[in-house]
Amino acid sequence: MKLVLHNYWRSSASHRVRIGLGLKQLAYDYVAVNIVLGDQQRDAYRARNPLAQVPTLEITEDDGTRLVLTQSLPILEYLDERWPAPPILPRDPYARARARALAEIINAGIQPMQNLLTTRRIKAFGVDDAAWVRPFIAEGLAAFARSAADTMGAFCVGDSPTIADCCLVPQLGAARRYQVELDECCQPLFAIEARCLALPAFAGAKPEQQPDAVTS
Amino acid sequence: MKLVLHNYWRSSASHRVRIGLGLKQLAYDYVAVNIVLGDQQRDAYRARNPLAQVPTLEITEDDGTRLVLTQSLPILEYLDERWPAPPILPRDPYARARARALAEIINAGIQPMQNLLTTRRIKAFGVDDAAWVRPFIAEGLAAFARSAADTMGAFCVGDSPTIADCCLVPQLGAARRYQVELDECCQPLFAIEARCLALPAFAGAKPEQQPDAVTS
Repeated sequence: MKLVLHNYWRSSASHRVRIGLGLKQLAYDYVAVNIVLGDQQRDAYRARNPLAQVPTLEITEDDGTRLVLTQSLPILEYLDERWPAPPILPRDPYARARARALAEIINAGIQPMQNLLTTRRIKAFGVDDAAWVRPFIAEGLAAFARSAADTMGAFCVGDSPTIADCCLVPQLGAARRYQVELDECCQPLFAIEARCLALPAFAGAKPEQQPDAVTS
Repeated sequence: MKLVLHNYWRSSASHRVRIGLGLKQLAYDYVAVNIVLGDQQRDAYRARNPLAQVPTLEITEDDGTRLVLTQSLPILEYLDERWPAPPILPRDPYARARARALAEIINAGIQPMQNLLTTRRIKAFGVDDAAWVRPFIAEGLAAFARSAADTMGAFCVGDSPTIADCCLVPQLGAARRYQVELDECCQPLFAIEARCLALPAFAGAKPEQQPDAVTS
């Protein structure tokens, strides 16, 4: 069995899946897809991922069967079903629902507003992308913090990392990149982030640690 | 046990959950949240749903315990875990991942661009909301159709409705509302839609069937 992750260092959806693979201690080949230069629009990539987004996870089984997985949260769910330990979804159904809802606040509520396609389109309409993105990030992370207030332990839901933490850490990175002023209620999220980054799975998934990272 | 769905007739995320409740044959109280007039911003609603979005599903257990579920896809996942028959996620893990990825193409790839908060903000920047929304819907549904090409049976994944169909039907409604010209590759989606609408769960969940519907 072999895993290949098609991804981009600074994409937050890619970052989530790298964290998940790290938590599951799964080795994978890293294939860089330069979304700034348009690699995701090439036919070979679109055949795997018709929406032309990163990441895509390809699994080649020992018998040669090839699985092509897209969309970060479904990929994380698949990893958890196939490699259950350590779990990245809580066992209790209500706690699972809460963890998934936190993940979606970022996945559907914030990130779509800040991704490259969206910010390019907004700029094409003559709108400043930072002015566009900031309220979504500020309000979204405040809603995330309020929603997590009664599920939080050392991590977003309880005392071990879940799919919610896999989304939170990349999103806080984007908040810094856009210099978003966050509400006071977001303070506990930074403590969770620090606990996450102390774990090898999160440390190794950082954008600037990736082979295609361009830092200046 | 009692279910209360806080929702809005024309919200596509609300619509998805109504379909799911129908497929599970679960009775629920319908509470209308008028998002056009701002009901979702009231403190009582935000206490349940800090992101101030519809829907929210409240479950009151026989012992008085109250569960508050937010975000349409996590709600559908919860329904499927608690009331497994009929399943709205395939049994096979890879097929599940494919169904979830289709759902996310709409949930994270299209719908966030067309929801009320987003279209109001885009208009506030002086941009025509239809011009903004249409390419996301056209490209997103084309990607959906291409992604479903090898999972499709009578429905999006196989021969019974899944979470992907729960998302598709409301999204096709929004495509019509915005008069989006869809690519030829989307044709099979209309055949699936027709099969869905022949089922009571989908027919009963239609926006115009809801008590708060305003049709002119």
